[in-house]
Amino acid sequence: MSEHFADRLMAAIKEKDSRVCVGIDPVIERLPEALGGIDDPLARVREFCSRILSAVAEHCVVAKPNSAFFEALGSGGMELLHEVVAQAKRLGLIVIVDAKRNDIGSTAEAYARALFEAPDAGSVPDAVTVNAYLGSDGVMPFIETARAAGGGVFVLVKTSNPSSAEIQDLDAGGKPIYRHLAELVDRWGADGVGESGWSSVGAVVGATWPEQLRELREVMPRTPFLVPGYGAQGGGAEDVAPAFDEDGMGAVVNSSRGIIYAGGDVEDFAAAAADAARAAKNDINETLGV
Amino acid sequence: MSEHFADRLMAAIKEKDSRVCVGIDPVIERLPEALGGIDDPLARVREFCSRILSAVAEHCVVAKPNSAFFEALGSGGMELLHEVVAQAKRLGLIVIVDAKRNDIGSTAEAYARALFEAPDAGSVPDAVTVNAYLGSDGVMPFIETARAAGGGVFVLVKTSNPSSAEIQDLDAGGKPIYRHLAELVDRWGADGVGESGWSSVGAVVGATWPEQLRELREVMPRTPFLVPGYGAQGGGAEDVAPAFDEDGMGAVVNSSRGIIYAGGDVEDFAAAAADAARAAKNDINETLGV
Repeated sequence: MSEHFADRLMAAIKEKDSRVCVGIDPVIERLPEALGGIDDPLARVREFCSRILSAVAEHCVVAKPNSAFFEALGSGGMELLHEVVAQAKRLGLIVIVDAKRNDIGSTAEAYARALFEAPDAGSVPDAVTVNAYLGSDGVMPFIETARAAGGGVFVLVKTSNPSSAEIQDLDAGGKPIYRHLAELVDRWGADGVGESGWSSVGAVVGATWPEQLRELREVMPRTPFLVPGYGAQGGGAEDVAPAFDEDGMGAVVNSSRGIIYAGGDVEDFAAAAADAARAAKNDINETLGV
Repeated sequence: MSEHFADRLMAAIKEKDSRVCVGIDPVIERLPEALGGIDDPLARVREFCSRILSAVAEHCVVAKPNSAFFEALGSGGMELLHEVVAQAKRLGLIVIVDAKRNDIGSTAEAYARALFEAPDAGSVPDAVTVNAYLGSDGVMPFIETARAAGGGVFVLVKTSNPSSAEIQDLDAGGKPIYRHLAELVDRWGADGVGESGWSSVGAVVGATWPEQLRELREVMPRTPFLVPGYGAQGGGAEDVAPAFDEDGMGAVVNSSRGIIYAGGDVEDFAAAAADAARAAKNDINETLGV
């Protein structure tokens, strides 16, 4: 396994011929009725994540558990997150923990250590998401800790939600804020480019903004993109296409609810999730012509 | 006890005649040698926090544990954070958990629940910090969950670190980004103003930028300020004065390292912390003339 995050990610995309990232967002109230026999909420989420991951692993290249849903489980939630990371890695998935952490100096280092120094090597994620509103001081400790662990970071640049425009689209000197941030991301990642030509410093750019996706791909030519907003949030395969280079490389497209809750309350919810993951994979690959 | 966060905060400032927030940032490597006899890192941090809190409580109005340092402790870290919150509340301190969380929709709700739905009522914080780069979608779930719990939020507006200028100071339409954010904060907090005249939606504005502090106080006249950067980061009492109104109300000034590590390795590190907290309290009060 390559020591460089982006090299590992790009090799996995080629090997699996998949650009799908499955978002693992377990909400107790939305778990299928088929799991109703398990009383303990933590055990129910564990079983749900386990069956979903096993079923979708062959169609996806990345799993992205969101820390919020595990933190909301209270005591034992973070240990379960580590278990989910470990299982996803055992299944051959690249794992991005979506935590959107941010702080400065030694505090940012503490967050980075909390994320990359998991109790055992098997549960160390490949990458994490970070929020860069605090600037370089808030991002470099994550990049350095990630790099030491052979991992990467994805910096929020242009998020998929409607109100992202309130701050991110403000025009400063003829360029929106997200573009200023993109230029910082390109700079932060410049000395972290691997043999694949891609950097270990990535960017989060929403599928719901195809024009910005195209613009940002030009500003950050070596930056892997994590693209949320496909599926349930309204983005289609045509919308995410500008995230990729001409060879169909350089990005992964996240779908959370559209995959993990695809079956609703059907008995075999995991098979339904696998079908949805396969469909997303084919949809994106066909649109890209790869 | 008032059900409104800002009313509670302002009453506590008056009652204690203190505007000092003690930042509880426990780093294993920096704990005093006097605790060397305790082998288990979690137990050592517990003892440190407990002795510091007991010693400084009479001189401070707020305790602000930073989640990062507890997350970095691994398994058991979050439970310890709850213990620290509970102890600080028992000691009569207002508690702000510094977590800088951010996400959208149901994910932001999950983070807010994780923070405000602690295992028992005694360990529910009074307020939390949030990062608003994602706009209203990312902030409203925190504000709503906080309000339902009688709590507040502090939105990062202008942070104390040197590189905060990279994004926050960019000029958009004649106003820096932090000012745009300040206007959003003022709006988000408009319907949450308590009997004290202050809102349950606060702002984080660094002591290291006194000019901006003055400007932002004008833009957000009803917004409680949490002011980091005093002491170890270089801000003095003169620098933080513009955060307060003419009656010396409306803000708390955070000091972390300057208080909790004031004694270095002296045997009675807690007494040294108490002295530092008292000195900070007097320094700020004298400068404000209150």
